Amino acid sequence: MKLFYSFLSLIFCCCSFELSAQSVQDKVKQFVKSNEDSIINEYIRFLSIPDVSADTTDIPFNVAFIQEMMQLRGIPSEQLHGRTAGVNPAVYGEIKVPGAKRTIGLYAHYDGQPVNPKQWAGGMEPFKPVFITNSLEHGGTIVAHSPGQPINPEWRITGRASADDKAGVMMILNAYDALVRSGVTLKDNIKFLFEGEEEVGSPHLDEIFQNNKEKLQADIWIIVDGARRVTGENLVVFGVRGDVNMDLTVYGAKRPLHSGGFGNWAPNPAMRLVQLLAGMKDEKGKVLIKGFYDDVIPLNTEEKKAIAAISDVTPTLKKELGVAEPDGDGVSYLELLSLPSLNINGIQSANAGKLAANIIPATAEATLDLRLVPGNDVIRQVQKIKDYIQSKDYHIIDHDPTDEERSQYGRLIKITTDKGYNAQRTPMNLPIAQNVIRAVQSTISYPVVLIPSSGGSLPLFMFEKYLDAKVVSVPLVNYDNNQHAENENVKVQYLLEGISTVAAIMLME
Amino acid sequence: MKLFYSFLSLIFCCCSFELSAQSVQDKVKQFVKSNEDSIINEYIRFLSIPDVSADTTDIPFNVAFIQEMMQLRGIPSEQLHGRTAGVNPAVYGEIKVPGAKRTIGLYAHYDGQPVNPKQWAGGMEPFKPVFITNSLEHGGTIVAHSPGQPINPEWRITGRASADDKAGVMMILNAYDALVRSGVTLKDNIKFLFEGEEEVGSPHLDEIFQNNKEKLQADIWIIVDGARRVTGENLVVFGVRGDVNMDLTVYGAKRPLHSGGFGNWAPNPAMRLVQLLAGMKDEKGKVLIKGFYDDVIPLNTEEKKAIAAISDVTPTLKKELGVAEPDGDGVSYLELLSLPSLNINGIQSANAGKLAANIIPATAEATLDLRLVPGNDVIRQVQKIKDYIQSKDYHIIDHDPTDEERSQYGRLIKITTDKGYNAQRTPMNLPIAQNVIRAVQSTISYPVVLIPSSGGSLPLFMFEKYLDAKVVSVPLVNYDNNQHAENENVKVQYLLEGISTVAAIMLME
Repeated sequence: MKLFYSFLSLIFCCCSFELSAQSVQDKVKQFVKSNEDSIINEYIRFLSIPDVSADTTDIPFNVAFIQEMMQLRGIPSEQLHGRTAGVNPAVYGEIKVPGAKRTIGLYAHYDGQPVNPKQWAGGMEPFKPVFITNSLEHGGTIVAHSPGQPINPEWRITGRASADDKAGVMMILNAYDALVRSGVTLKDNIKFLFEGEEEVGSPHLDEIFQNNKEKLQADIWIIVDGARRVTGENLVVFGVRGDVNMDLTVYGAKRPLHSGGFGNWAPNPAMRLVQLLAGMKDEKGKVLIKGFYDDVIPLNTEEKKAIAAISDVTPTLKKELGVAEPDGDGVSYLELLSLPSLNINGIQSANAGKLAANIIPATAEATLDLRLVPGNDVIRQVQKIKDYIQSKDYHIIDHDPTDEERSQYGRLIKITTDKGYNAQRTPMNLPIAQNVIRAVQSTISYPVVLIPSSGGSLPLFMFEKYLDAKVVSVPLVNYDNNQHAENENVKVQYLLEGISTVAAIMLME
Repeated sequence: MKLFYSFLSLIFCCCSFELSAQSVQDKVKQFVKSNEDSIINEYIRFLSIPDVSADTTDIPFNVAFIQEMMQLRGIPSEQLHGRTAGVNPAVYGEIKVPGAKRTIGLYAHYDGQPVNPKQWAGGMEPFKPVFITNSLEHGGTIVAHSPGQPINPEWRITGRASADDKAGVMMILNAYDALVRSGVTLKDNIKFLFEGEEEVGSPHLDEIFQNNKEKLQADIWIIVDGARRVTGENLVVFGVRGDVNMDLTVYGAKRPLHSGGFGNWAPNPAMRLVQLLAGMKDEKGKVLIKGFYDDVIPLNTEEKKAIAAISDVTPTLKKELGVAEPDGDGVSYLELLSLPSLNINGIQSANAGKLAANIIPATAEATLDLRLVPGNDVIRQVQKIKDYIQSKDYHIIDHDPTDEERSQYGRLIKITTDKGYNAQRTPMNLPIAQNVIRAVQSTISYPVVLIPSSGGSLPLFMFEKYLDAKVVSVPLVNYDNNQHAENENVKVQYLLEGISTVAAIMLME
């Protein structure tokens, strides 16, 4: 009997909690629905402000816009700086809840990757958002939409940072707004942090953390950045790869030469660069550089188990992306993302195609992206690439060559590297991480997908190193968002659902 | 005694000819000097008209300008067409000299290579010519020059086609003008032909020749295009390499992907393209493609002798161009130019450097330039490259891939090729060719340099094939003219001296 009552009370207890969570979610959803127009309009205005990290002229307008959004929502805000002057500030805000025993931090970044407007599709510009009916690959076309007309949740909003990561800022601030304006009582303190240099490798986030260590203390920092699975399923992600960029410039003659007048004699820097790059990987995408994989810490049993539990997306990806022969020699997608990578972000020498001329170019440039995993170190990883380049008889310089260097060295290469940062991984069994999982789970009807480490990068190691904080990522936008490239876009449905997800996290057990 | 008188008469004969030639040259030089301002001003107006071969909007303005220049000089002109409508016409003119037993044809082209204005140096634009004090590599700066102020012959005039090859049109028309207005009597008929599609491989010159075979008959065609030696010495050139361009596009995923989210899994078309290109040449620039050198007809004894007589420019070139380690494994510059070549004109995939983003590009493109020598054939040479590419497991298409092709083939490459043309070589011992040599020699105090074949290309085989004509080239501009590239320029001194050289050819023995 007693047992029976206990059992009943357990049911009631669960139901009562579930009902209550459900009711809050309904309220949030109702709020979003009622305010959809103004939420989307505000977001479009936000996306209209150019936010390329290096565009210091326009960055302050983003900062001002965010602080205004926070003020409208009753969140006191300030700009956080490190030691270095003249760099993009982070925007910080804090809500103290009387009697709160815990603090939840929410992070997103407002800066975007560089843009080349010429590469965007017709009618689309990086900082003039429009609605499109679907991704361009699926025949999406621009919608002639006037404010106030209904918005189809299947549509996407285009623009640089629409997905990565002004979406994060938008969802966090609207989640808070939805809770407060729906009369829901918060039980934890909430901290807001919006970074402005993520897309250039967060070169001053360490300084910002060091200068504001006490202010930024939290029991957990939730990173609202990145995309759901290709299936559309929600994720919780426990780690990120590290990242560092290298820029390589190989030199030919001092000036472009007529390919007839000098062809066979003048060295072609494009040919020399392609030969150098070609040797870095085998035909299946495995990096051939000496020691490249040596210091990788393998996945632990729990992480391997998590990966094994995830349905295989390879067939979907292959079809969706039009790829018949992926790299990786048959290793699974998620396992490949747990390895360091070497990617050619771009290569350019003179012009190819319609603008090509019959010349021997004077220089050839490539930008590499190295992703790092636990065990790797930025400086060691970069050095491995440099050692390889030197083994190919290149003399490495950090400037355009002088006449003396040109006469002294047969092969010259300029290498510049950004600061970069290492990988980070949070143990999946951490109690507060489990709370985050349950919060996200409460908003969906299928099992939330748990990823030991995303393939992407964020400077999350700094949260551990400088704030002694735990950190977990909750990526919320569509995976086919053209993040970092032309025609970036975010699906309206996910943007609005993301508000509910963040709200659930703000209320987590 | 008899011998003595014969010797004397030989001297007198020579002197009399030399004096007379000298006096004509003085007249031409005097004319050029007196009219320098108007000649240069007219040329600057000519260069201000955009003339990229594909720019059909502006090409007619070039044609009109040339016909106006001809009209001003009393040369009746007309536009020549082939069968194909809507392509750039050639401009033709003819001066019939009563009693003439010989016809000298003079060819140049008015169209220019594509331009990327962003690549030009500050203050310089492709179609806004300015004076610069020297080449940019030698610290040249823009001159604030007003019309009427003296012009330093060391200066250069910048602009697309300033050297290649509006200079040819300009020198030919002014040479004729100088002779006529100096009261010199012509003894040969003169024909003028200015082509408008040379920089895209003269795809319709064959049709123009076929349609106008009788009109274009001449005892010799003189090609006024190309550059003097690096030493500044004048040349007579007896052949050209053939030329064909190939455009290669390699495909990755359908859209650019985040390099973190997909790095190690999604194939990178830039990496695949560099691996493909890298295998085409060895480290010393030798082409590794099967059979690439097989059908080359070697230089004959006379040609080898001519090359051996020419001073070695390698040390000058190395210094001037900042090249410590040229391609060619120690083979001499001129011998290398008598071999077929394979050059990367340009390569591009996404963006490198400041615009680079952390993506896996969707496509990678390279444009190749193949130069051909006697024995080679365009179609055979292109096929060798295609065979190599197929041997690397690529499926070749001539369009962007369909979804079906993407699912069927692991490696897809789009290859497009222009029409191209074969090499041409005129025997050096031809009597009329010897007359050209003597005419050029009469204008200079050092031995004219004789080149069996230039490294560059012109569709000269067509003069033989369709007109049964002999053809010899007389290149007259500075070698460091950035022809085909940004910051193209022509040295004023050579432009003006070229007028005298062409005038001497119009009066040749």
